[in-house]
Amino acid sequence: MRAQELTEEPGVFRPVIENASGQSPILLVCEHASNAMPAPWGDLGLTAEQTRAHIAWDPGALGLARGLAQRLDATLIHAPVSRLIYDCNRGPDMPGAMPARSEIHDIPGNSAITPAERLARTRAVYQPWATALHNLIADRIALGRRPVIVTIHSFTPIYHGKPRAVEFGIIHDAAPALALAVLEAARALTGLNARLNEPYSAADDVTHTLRLHATPYGLENVMLELRNDLIATPEAEAAMAETLAPVMSAALDSLRRPL
Amino acid sequence: MRAQELTEEPGVFRPVIENASGQSPILLVCEHASNAMPAPWGDLGLTAEQTRAHIAWDPGALGLARGLAQRLDATLIHAPVSRLIYDCNRGPDMPGAMPARSEIHDIPGNSAITPAERLARTRAVYQPWATALHNLIADRIALGRRPVIVTIHSFTPIYHGKPRAVEFGIIHDAAPALALAVLEAARALTGLNARLNEPYSAADDVTHTLRLHATPYGLENVMLELRNDLIATPEAEAAMAETLAPVMSAALDSLRRPL
Repeated sequence: MRAQELTEEPGVFRPVIENASGQSPILLVCEHASNAMPAPWGDLGLTAEQTRAHIAWDPGALGLARGLAQRLDATLIHAPVSRLIYDCNRGPDMPGAMPARSEIHDIPGNSAITPAERLARTRAVYQPWATALHNLIADRIALGRRPVIVTIHSFTPIYHGKPRAVEFGIIHDAAPALALAVLEAARALTGLNARLNEPYSAADDVTHTLRLHATPYGLENVMLELRNDLIATPEAEAAMAETLAPVMSAALDSLRRPL
Repeated sequence: MRAQELTEEPGVFRPVIENASGQSPILLVCEHASNAMPAPWGDLGLTAEQTRAHIAWDPGALGLARGLAQRLDATLIHAPVSRLIYDCNRGPDMPGAMPARSEIHDIPGNSAITPAERLARTRAVYQPWATALHNLIADRIALGRRPVIVTIHSFTPIYHGKPRAVEFGIIHDAAPALALAVLEAARALTGLNARLNEPYSAADDVTHTLRLHATPYGLENVMLELRNDLIATPEAEAAMAETLAPVMSAALDSLRRPL
């Protein structure tokens, strides 16, 4: 798989596109792939332990997404910096775009962001992200290949002190067809505790990517959430990709099947 | 008002942004501002008369939009090439994006567009357009200034041989609040024959810009259509801008007014 690094401009953090010529209709999107906290922002006053934790990124999500990209021959786009610098699954007006607090952690470097700083981060991270993703989608639509948008996330097994039983969350926005098909395939093909719209749902404002990039074009779409203790090593990421690739294929097939 | 021409790249037709520092919340959008048919496409086999007609652009719309931008101190973005090369108010999968026929006219250069040519036009015109408009919106949202998206169009007084009585069409997509406020203000402040969702409506797939750029962010939005015989000269464009600027101000005020 080829990593396509786009033109470098100082202060612009472009997303990474892998397997750009992938033949699957699925376009994999990983907004929280990285915990990189580059200059000019740096660690935002967090400890090294905090920058490795789920508040800074979705641990395991990129490895899982890469495993799926390889097995499905799908294109993958992922963000190059931590969600605490800018969360590419949030619009610039959303508090979560540059959060002052995440779960039980204050983010010192985000406690008093000026409008100029919000604009600078939006231009450095969010706009290049949104442009690259939109261009990928528009390219395929122009060629008559309507993409299926699948975002890949992970969640922490313990949140605000409470353990979560769900292992595989399948979240939809306005159009639930693909999510329902994935749920059915996951229950048929895996032993995972799979749940619809858990541990989050669109009502929690977690579906910005789907709303901005899939809904306006009427593209099938779904947000997938894996509990991160299940994808905590490269081997576990690969095993989960091996489990979920047939789930995604079966879900797509069921949507294409004549009624 | 300053015309901001963005960096030139060969084969890329970037939109023009005027009055970029405008202080109004209104962001004026004019997808059909130009009838320019530059190389490598040229006139698509049309006569000079056809390239001056409403099928190639919305005559009067840019002049009206500029008049409104000046009177409201609003930013204006407009497309630099004919809608027959690429219609920026259509997604790349829509037949109207590169139409083979418009009203009663065949478009010879669009009769058999290859996938490679659809992709080339999408990259040359649509993607730079969508990026520039999205960046304008994201900039403002980051600064806490939620823009109000107002697209400016004109329509032909006679369509398929039938005269149209409507003079001012006010079209909404999913969120009708601003359209209803504009209709009320137009009826109170002008003598125009103003109609809701005429001569087109969202069901005719004419609201792509609103769906892609306004709805995902929950921005107020409306599409305005003026009958082009009412804005057929620079003086008439200015007079219509003088008529409609207070309508837009009153409509915005009514949305801001506490109930």
